[in-house]
Amino acid sequence: METWDALRARRNVRQYADRPIDPAHLDRILEAGRRAPSSMNEQRWDLVLSTDREQLRELSRVWRGAGHVATSAATVNLLTTVTEDAGLRASIEFDAGQVTMSMMIAAADPGIGSCHSVVADQELARKILGHPNELRGSMLISFGYPADQPLRPIRDPNRRPFDQVVHRGHW
Amino acid sequence: METWDALRARRNVRQYADRPIDPAHLDRILEAGRRAPSSMNEQRWDLVLSTDREQLRELSRVWRGAGHVATSAATVNLLTTVTEDAGLRASIEFDAGQVTMSMMIAAADPGIGSCHSVVADQELARKILGHPNELRGSMLISFGYPADQPLRPIRDPNRRPFDQVVHRGHW
Repeated sequence: METWDALRARRNVRQYADRPIDPAHLDRILEAGRRAPSSMNEQRWDLVLSTDREQLRELSRVWRGAGHVATSAATVNLLTTVTEDAGLRASIEFDAGQVTMSMMIAAADPGIGSCHSVVADQELARKILGHPNELRGSMLISFGYPADQPLRPIRDPNRRPFDQVVHRGHW
Repeated sequence: METWDALRARRNVRQYADRPIDPAHLDRILEAGRRAPSSMNEQRWDLVLSTDREQLRELSRVWRGAGHVATSAATVNLLTTVTEDAGLRASIEFDAGQVTMSMMIAAADPGIGSCHSVVADQELARKILGHPNELRGSMLISFGYPADQPLRPIRDPNRRPFDQVVHRGHW
């Protein structure tokens, strides 16, 4: 798909079709995440891929808004370094956002939808995934083919108007 | 360009050619940012576009690593909502990372390079741009055609190895 079409076709999908994702597509999604830029190229993240249905169901309990994880074909658990420093945490999460967007756009290209979930219950996530205490769940990103319409470029997304968001030269 | 090529061609560019960016390309970059997803669709960001050479030179002084802004064809000043809450700030910056990555990938498609700079001197940025106190400079993202090689897909990026970053099913 052309890049501009993939950027416009990406959308949150909360109900997934019962259809697996080709392992080569999954690897490409993960590779897109791995390639994301980061502050000083520090790459303060790890990616845990879940495709087991029972594990996906368990993971869907880490937040009340994580139901989409249960029916996803795959979910990437994006883990980031724990810190008490608010500025450092913000920097790490900025980079995590870059990882997430890269994966979502790579997924949209072959028609794979995606959705975010925060990790409210960090202890449950740790119990399921087994990561060390130095890492925390930043975001779960579920992937799968939409149960409803296929992805296609969205003409008019639900966003603030262009001229309200964009300022030219000065506030 | 194909999405996968754009994702692999994106790279940090710190020396830009003296060549303007077509306004339609700039609008597409900004539109990609506007479309980024966010927590509860709150879109806690604003984008200030700078293309004036003198303003770009001034902006390059907000951080010692912002020199690339001075020679860029355009720089987007990504502003985010100020908060004292560390968790909220992390969430806002996660979304800012998604905005940034969307713009960088949209830019890479027609061969436009990009680079980040944090905003160390918030007061200077505010003096130049005139934004209200409720907003802060999250990141400057410079754009332009590379002075050296054109963008092309990078085979082996400088990142942690795939098998070190990616875990399957469990830590």
